[in-house]
Amino acid sequence: MKILILGAGGMIGRRIAAAVAEAGTIGGQGVTAMTLADIAEPPVPQAGGLSIAAHGLDLSEPGAVERLLADRPDVILHLAAVVSGEAEVDFDKGYRVNLDAMRAMLDAIRAVPDWCPRLVYASSLAVFGPPFPDRIDDDFAPLPATSYGAQKLMAEILISDYSRKGHVDGVSLRLPTICIRPGAPNRAASGFFSGILREPLAGLPAALPVPESTRHYFASPRAAVGFFLHAAAMDTAPLGHRRALNMPGLSATVGEVIAALRSVAGDAAVALIRPEPDPLVATIVGGWGMDYTAARARDLGFTAETRFEDIIAAHVEDELGGRIAKGAGA
Amino acid sequence: MKILILGAGGMIGRRIAAAVAEAGTIGGQGVTAMTLADIAEPPVPQAGGLSIAAHGLDLSEPGAVERLLADRPDVILHLAAVVSGEAEVDFDKGYRVNLDAMRAMLDAIRAVPDWCPRLVYASSLAVFGPPFPDRIDDDFAPLPATSYGAQKLMAEILISDYSRKGHVDGVSLRLPTICIRPGAPNRAASGFFSGILREPLAGLPAALPVPESTRHYFASPRAAVGFFLHAAAMDTAPLGHRRALNMPGLSATVGEVIAALRSVAGDAAVALIRPEPDPLVATIVGGWGMDYTAARARDLGFTAETRFEDIIAAHVEDELGGRIAKGAGA
Repeated sequence: MKILILGAGGMIGRRIAAAVAEAGTIGGQGVTAMTLADIAEPPVPQAGGLSIAAHGLDLSEPGAVERLLADRPDVILHLAAVVSGEAEVDFDKGYRVNLDAMRAMLDAIRAVPDWCPRLVYASSLAVFGPPFPDRIDDDFAPLPATSYGAQKLMAEILISDYSRKGHVDGVSLRLPTICIRPGAPNRAASGFFSGILREPLAGLPAALPVPESTRHYFASPRAAVGFFLHAAAMDTAPLGHRRALNMPGLSATVGEVIAALRSVAGDAAVALIRPEPDPLVATIVGGWGMDYTAARARDLGFTAETRFEDIIAAHVEDELGGRIAKGAGA
Repeated sequence: MKILILGAGGMIGRRIAAAVAEAGTIGGQGVTAMTLADIAEPPVPQAGGLSIAAHGLDLSEPGAVERLLADRPDVILHLAAVVSGEAEVDFDKGYRVNLDAMRAMLDAIRAVPDWCPRLVYASSLAVFGPPFPDRIDDDFAPLPATSYGAQKLMAEILISDYSRKGHVDGVSLRLPTICIRPGAPNRAASGFFSGILREPLAGLPAALPVPESTRHYFASPRAAVGFFLHAAAMDTAPLGHRRALNMPGLSATVGEVIAALRSVAGDAAVALIRPEPDPLVATIVGGWGMDYTAARARDLGFTAETRFEDIIAAHVEDELGGRIAKGAGA
């Protein structure tokens, strides 16, 4: 089985590539070759017996997609995107990369007879916009409040239509906010959700811009990797023409997140969190969905953490070598 | 006020053009000029003091949209489309006309500073696909079961995003099945809904391919014209970023439709309907929504018939000069 990962240099893409390289299989099937692509050449993981190629290229450049598809991968994991903030500022770039490049890829696949690869697409729960019910079920209408959400939703619709026509075998995964993101703090409005855990676990202070009553919906990087690997190998027949799935996650208030941090890392870690109310961030986060049933995805075998302590433990294991910073430990 | 009608040669477009020409106003505002466009040059209605231009052109040809927009209409009514059956057979043409031409138009509007025209778009309840609840509310997720539905939904999303960004002031109208369509019978799966009324009212036989228990959702051509004129002049502020509206209509079983025919045109008319079960048509129609609350649209002042007798009466007045065929009359 040949696999192509687009956006293989990103936080989730890198982990997927590493997991596939380590296992040498997806869903019990042997992987013989893996191609990794991103705007900058992505890192190549330890390979075992696996042939791995890595390319740095812009998917929206003419011919780029065709080049990557030349060896007819059986599975394409598509995580390449212009992210939310940039798509909002650079309207044309967002549509070019997030929509046009997807359509060009689908048309390139359609042009090849007798080839219907599995396509797993990183969509986002940002396809939804307010007003929301407290808990969003699988029949609730997406209503994007950003250009990024609009582009993701349109890409989903294309994937569904091309799948219905038999050109591709697509699954769109609407991802929750991924937490804990490793690395340096960023200025994304959602960044603090990771920051209030990641920094204290490293013995560093962190700002909390919203009230502890703020509720949001999360999955760990490890769960996200699991979503893609599950979707790469699942039986898609039960999807019918409903190819986009709200992914499972964990709904928690900031207060519950902090309580989980306390139980894993103690009072000293929690003491590193400083309330610094930011009305703009509070307003943005207030426009996001708080909880999703994700009933269809759960029925189809997708799983995520059910306790926030497990999200923290996954970070401590995967990023901190099992060690919590001195002074923050319980 | 200048108005541009795309698809002005179609069944609804022609009626809108005639209504505007007759009234000389939309929503109380005087119309000074009207431009009509369709793939073939559309008919020019009686004008009064109104300057009317008519163009036959293909909207998906380069430069066509820019030409039509050159005199900066204040209101654009967009009813031009590759219809459902054709979009299903000619995949590329459907996307080119129903999606790419819309995007080109929105980008052409965006390119002009300080111009934010009202855009009223003929979308369709075909954005929805099964499985359905018996009655579909405004929060129910669209899930297109055809390429036409997918293209209409993507065009809606574009219109919403461009409206959110302030480039256009868009409203997408998700139209019910329009009934009674005048003219000759066609082979559309929905054609019989008009046929079992139109033909008997003209003294002609009509085939009924589905059971009388089949339920569907209708509005008259007259109601559809009203939707567009209302949307052309409405206050769009209450829409927020929810720019697509399920239009009001009348949910009725075939049995109820026939009962209405009997009350308007008598037993002789009803006797002209012959059951000719067609399992394929029954299956296709079984995949369509049966009823919609259309609560938001109703709150915003959109109205449709509430009795099927009124739908029939509108046809008799507008198409038959008030006369029901001899032998079919009550």
